[in-house]
Amino acid sequence: MSLQKVHEETIGLKPPLVKVCGRSIEEFLDAIEKFHGWKAPGLVIGGFMVDWAQELIGPGIEADAIVETCHCLPDAIQLFTPCTCGNGWMKILDWDKFALSLYDKKRLEGFRIWLDLRKTALFPNIYNWFMRLVPKKSLPLQIVLEDIIAAGRSILSSAPVQITKLHGKKNRGITGICSGCGEAYPLEQGEQCLSCQGMRYFDLVRRQ
Amino acid sequence: MSLQKVHEETIGLKPPLVKVCGRSIEEFLDAIEKFHGWKAPGLVIGGFMVDWAQELIGPGIEADAIVETCHCLPDAIQLFTPCTCGNGWMKILDWDKFALSLYDKKRLEGFRIWLDLRKTALFPNIYNWFMRLVPKKSLPLQIVLEDIIAAGRSILSSAPVQITKLHGKKNRGITGICSGCGEAYPLEQGEQCLSCQGMRYFDLVRRQ
Ligand SMILES: [Zn+2]
Ligand SMILES: [Zn+2]
Repeated sequence: MSLQKVHEETIGLKPPLVKVCGRSIEEFLDAIEKFHGWKAPGLVIGGFMVDWAQELIGPGIEADAIVETCHCLPDAIQLFTPCTCGNGWMKILDWDKFALSLYDKKRLEGFRIWLDLRKTALFPNIYNWFMRLVPKKSLPLQIVLEDIIAAGRSILSSAPVQITKLHGKKNRGITGICSGCGEAYPLEQGEQCLSCQGMRYFDLVRRQ
Repeated sequence: MSLQKVHEETIGLKPPLVKVCGRSIEEFLDAIEKFHGWKAPGLVIGGFMVDWAQELIGPGIEADAIVETCHCLPDAIQLFTPCTCGNGWMKILDWDKFALSLYDKKRLEGFRIWLDLRKTALFPNIYNWFMRLVPKKSLPLQIVLEDIIAAGRSILSSAPVQITKLHGKKNRGITGICSGCGEAYPLEQGEQCLSCQGMRYFDLVRRQ
C-alpha cells in the first residue's frame, strides 16, 4: 500500500490536503532522500515538526531556528526553511532531545515543537523505533515510515515560547595568525590555535 | 564585466574548463544563493575548497567531511557533497579556522584544504575581507566575489592527511524520560535533561 494511501485511510484526508511543508508526501520524501541520503524516520518526523511550527508562526515572519539534537532535525530545518548551519540562522544544541523551535528573529517569540512520547501510544512502532527497543531487522524502515506519515502531527506537541538565551551566539573577536601552523584563528583562543593546542584531528601524510 | 569574463581574463581558462563542483560559475553561484540565502564570499571560497578536495580524493570514494568553522563552510559541504550535519557524515568543529577535510570514511585518509593567507598577497581585497580590515561599505560584495572567482584555488593550500581523532563521535547511550519535562533524553546527562538542568533557552508563554 502506498504511503499516500495509508495516510488517506488512517487520517481520512483527501489527497489535496495531505501536504507537508507545501509538498505532496511523495515530493516531501523525495526531497528528504535527495538531501539526506535516505528517508530517515527522524527527518520525516522533523518535516512534520517544521510544517507545524511554520503554520503556528504564520506567513511573512523571518524566523530563526534552534534544534536540540544534531541528529536528523538540522536537516529538516535546512530542507524546509531558509535557515542553514552555515548562514547562522539555525543553532544546533547537541543535547539529543527531539525538539526544535522556530521564532521571530526580531521579537524572539515563536513555537517549540517536540515528539511527545505519551502521544505515541497509538503507534507502538514509532515508540519502539524512537526508544531503540527493537532491533532494526524486526522493524523495517517502510513500516516505521508508514506509521509516521499516518501519525502526522498527532505524536507531536507544541508550545509558544519566548527565547531567553541564544546559546553559542558570540561576536567574532580579533583574528590573528597562529605561530604554530601559520593559519588565521581567533586570538581569544590563546597563543596558538586550538588545533596547535592539541585538538588536531589529523596527522600529515608524507608522500613517497 | 561578468564573473565568467573576469575569470577567463585573469586565469586564461576557456569557458568549458571553468567548472566548480561540476557546475558552471553561474550555476555554482545560483546554488549557493538558493541554499544559503546570499552569495557569501566564504561559501564561494568553500566551493573551490570542496571542488579541489573532491578532485584529490578521486571518484568512487565514500567521503566524510570535517569543517573547522561553523561559518559558511558547512554549507559548502552540504551543497556539493552528500554529507549533511543531520546525516552524520559531516562534523563541525567550532574553531573559527577556515579549513575543511574530506576523507575516505573507511581508510580515514584524505585531504585537508585551507585558505592560505600568504597566497592572498595578489588579492588584497580577499585578504582585507577575510581579516575584516575594511568596513563592508568600502568593499562591495561584487568586488570580493570577482576576486575570489579570479583567484580560484590559487589562494588555497592542500595536504594529504590521516584522520586520527573523530571529535564528538560517540555512541548514543540509553534513552530515558526526564522527570522535569517528561521528554526523552540521554540518561548519561544526569538525573534530568540538560534543559531542565538550567540550559533551557526559552520561557513558556502563557496564552490569554
Ligand atoms: Zn595553529
Ligand atoms: Zn527535562
